[in-house]
Amino acid sequence: MTTEQLIAQIYKKRSFLCIGLDTDLDKIPTHLLDDEDPLFAFNKAIIDATHHLCVAYKPNTAFYEAYGSKGWESLSKTAAYIKKVDPEIFTIADAKRGDIGNTATRYAKAFFEDMEFDAVTVAPYMGRDSVEPFLSFDKKHTILLALTSNEGAFDYQLKDIEGQKFFELVLGTSQTYRNSQNLMYVVGATKAEYLLEVRKHVPDHFLLVPGVGAQGGSLEEVCKYGMNKNIGLLVNSSRGIIYASGDRDFSEAAAKKAAVLQNQMALELDKLT
Amino acid sequence: MTTEQLIAQIYKKRSFLCIGLDTDLDKIPTHLLDDEDPLFAFNKAIIDATHHLCVAYKPNTAFYEAYGSKGWESLSKTAAYIKKVDPEIFTIADAKRGDIGNTATRYAKAFFEDMEFDAVTVAPYMGRDSVEPFLSFDKKHTILLALTSNEGAFDYQLKDIEGQKFFELVLGTSQTYRNSQNLMYVVGATKAEYLLEVRKHVPDHFLLVPGVGAQGGSLEEVCKYGMNKNIGLLVNSSRGIIYASGDRDFSEAAAKKAAVLQNQMALELDKLT
Repeated sequence: MTTEQLIAQIYKKRSFLCIGLDTDLDKIPTHLLDDEDPLFAFNKAIIDATHHLCVAYKPNTAFYEAYGSKGWESLSKTAAYIKKVDPEIFTIADAKRGDIGNTATRYAKAFFEDMEFDAVTVAPYMGRDSVEPFLSFDKKHTILLALTSNEGAFDYQLKDIEGQKFFELVLGTSQTYRNSQNLMYVVGATKAEYLLEVRKHVPDHFLLVPGVGAQGGSLEEVCKYGMNKNIGLLVNSSRGIIYASGDRDFSEAAAKKAAVLQNQMALELDKLT
Repeated sequence: MTTEQLIAQIYKKRSFLCIGLDTDLDKIPTHLLDDEDPLFAFNKAIIDATHHLCVAYKPNTAFYEAYGSKGWESLSKTAAYIKKVDPEIFTIADAKRGDIGNTATRYAKAFFEDMEFDAVTVAPYMGRDSVEPFLSFDKKHTILLALTSNEGAFDYQLKDIEGQKFFELVLGTSQTYRNSQNLMYVVGATKAEYLLEVRKHVPDHFLLVPGVGAQGGSLEEVCKYGMNKNIGLLVNSSRGIIYASGDRDFSEAAAKKAAVLQNQMALELDKLT
């Protein structure tokens, strides 16, 4: 999918919501556990109920790997089902992979080609030759971890280096990578002011923003500091939406929570025009 | 497995060789492609031929994920087969995972509990709360990326920060993590002198050293700068061993290559006593 198609979808749905499918057998309604594939059954119901309210889904691969080859099958079915329900939806494998050369290419093929994800999250630590193999895929997007919303971000990402924060070095360095137009960045919302710094380095790129809601970030602040003329934001919510109810009404409850965010996003989009 | 058991195995086999199972259907002998599970068939033959010469196996998960749920099954069977052939062998899932809190725990359970790996490689970028969930598993080992052997290491790992190289900050910071005794580190062999710096920060920990041979590092130099009183080294070779021949004699050829390294390692171990 091209960035232009993503932007068109955002205007059409008046939403830049990404729903995180961190699907956990310990948290889904117990009546689903009798299903042959409970992970997929849960995801299918969530997708059916919310796909008109969001522009992206982001399964975190850890929750599927935890169930071995069966979980991997559930992930693959989920990716295919999203595209079946709405081929315009942007799909992100939240895998945070990072490895060298031919190994990175293996990961890229698994997510971009076999499972046909539009995007994959990638860790920056190993540098250029761990990221460029992902960037070489046309109409696919590599979402590099820049500033994450967890406490551990202080260990390295917020350290001063060469007169800037380390995450700024990651932003600047990655802009020199071949096919850097295919980059997006993970930037947590816990301190929305950092988005100002981020936009100095990458004014045009899309940002995937976790941490709104549950982790304390405000949507209004994220938009104030992070939005650009092409929107440039995908705001993610995972547990706040998919576990809104632990009962048989879980998908309706999820849709309600998603609708609240979609309404707020529509207002923010109005400000842009 | 405890570190003491690993050390005992090293003395018994007179080897600190780790064999990387980067098994690739494009590179294995073509006669294996008719097998129901070619990845496992290849690994099984390599393990049968080499397990007396090495103390560890390290499948890189990318090569298995590339084949979806079937590849994941092959990985799981490989991990189980290694322990069946020799329960003393140290098994490493080279996964380079890194994610926060409950998500990291999912990855840890997948590798440590479901597939019963002894160790998993982890990326440091997200900091403390992305590493400690792995460290909390008893008799399991978390191998943190410190200095990798690829060119991209210059992007961040070798940058100066707070009067030291960035990889040194990673070494020092990670030593403050809870259960840091369960840490090992990936340190590439491309510049063996860096091992001197590494040993200033982590004198007692085991290092997993890729890049000997194919990528130009010398075993003698690695031992000179990196070995400690408990050996403290696992030296990895992947393609140089497993693809020594592309024909029906591939496992014998692999054993010959492994034996050359084992012989050199025996000499290095003699120097220690």
